[in-house]
Amino acid sequence: MDEGGRSPDLADVELLGLLSYLQLTAFSRLAADAEMAPGYPQRAAAARMAVGHYQCFEALTERLAALGADPPSSMRPFMAPIDAFHSRTRPNSWLQSLVKVYVGDGIAQDFYREISLYAAPGTRDLVHSVLRDTELADFAVAEVKSAIARDSAVAGPLALWGRRLVGEAFTQAQHIAAERDALASLVVSETDLGELGRMFTRITSAHEDRMARLGLSA
Amino acid sequence: MDEGGRSPDLADVELLGLLSYLQLTAFSRLAADAEMAPGYPQRAAAARMAVGHYQCFEALTERLAALGADPPSSMRPFMAPIDAFHSRTRPNSWLQSLVKVYVGDGIAQDFYREISLYAAPGTRDLVHSVLRDTELADFAVAEVKSAIARDSAVAGPLALWGRRLVGEAFTQAQHIAAERDALASLVVSETDLGELGRMFTRITSAHEDRMARLGLSA
Repeated sequence: MDEGGRSPDLADVELLGLLSYLQLTAFSRLAADAEMAPGYPQRAAAARMAVGHYQCFEALTERLAALGADPPSSMRPFMAPIDAFHSRTRPNSWLQSLVKVYVGDGIAQDFYREISLYAAPGTRDLVHSVLRDTELADFAVAEVKSAIARDSAVAGPLALWGRRLVGEAFTQAQHIAAERDALASLVVSETDLGELGRMFTRITSAHEDRMARLGLSA
Repeated sequence: MDEGGRSPDLADVELLGLLSYLQLTAFSRLAADAEMAPGYPQRAAAARMAVGHYQCFEALTERLAALGADPPSSMRPFMAPIDAFHSRTRPNSWLQSLVKVYVGDGIAQDFYREISLYAAPGTRDLVHSVLRDTELADFAVAEVKSAIARDSAVAGPLALWGRRLVGEAFTQAQHIAAERDALASLVVSETDLGELGRMFTRITSAHEDRMARLGLSA
């Protein structure tokens, strides 16, 4: 692993494995959360969005197979941290679920867009197309804002929830970076530490923008 | 409702509304149950199967819209009994989930295939294509049989679970039949009571065959 840690192919496989498992769990979680939706349009939208995650999962695992990698083996190293993230951030309400999808997908998208810049072109293009902005973004913003307009007391707990989500996401990302040499080297070998710091600043700043769009303090 | 109870259009809308909600809930439940899968192939298969339920849901709601019906209004009368069925039959294990999918889908498919014979041709053809046998059937049979081969002690509790599923399904079906005149009249107005009895005999017999294929006593 130390020797192979800087192989671009291995880094691509790790990036794709991480993203695949993230999409598969997002699918299951969002499909289940759809049952908390307060009405039909929201429930159908969440179900449709969950299916979108499944389709991303399929495209990513197909790419893994095309690279000669075994999809389950490629995902396995990321299962424990991603499962831990989900079990520590189980939404108790529809609004918590929406904030989780919006904030979680947003951070994940920023992060993977940044690191995929250093991946092989085929992987980079796929990651960019998979992480396209989805219809749910506007939908989540509208739902959360209208809930706050109806009852401003929901804003404080949701803002806390947003901070907890970021904290858990960064905690698990650190576990992954510490253990997956190839993936970490994708960023660090190609950039200096200053660039790494600027990357985290950009991601944090984008997160604050998203919280503000929801009407929540970051 | 009493006056319109025998309108074939209303009966079609009720049949499609019932099936739509059944597919939407099957999607959410199976997508969530996928997380109980013991390994990757099973988990990916369950996720793919859940997406199949979503696609059925979409086809059915499109047909409702084409008939001039409002999909959420058409589903609403069936939400309480179907939600009750699911909350009373929440699987505690991957094997329970598989038996539920296999036995539940099987009974539902037999039942809807039977009553759709009396629906308008367009609806009937759609229902038949939506209720096609799926790949999960073979997969569930293989999984359950190999679990029983590894440990024969799982068979008894799973057989009990199968009986509970049938009992809950018939209970909720009776609620629906009692309250939805149009749907009930689809069968009763076109047939005599003897035919209705024979229909239940056929469904029960097919259920026993399915349990036997799983290696379980019905």
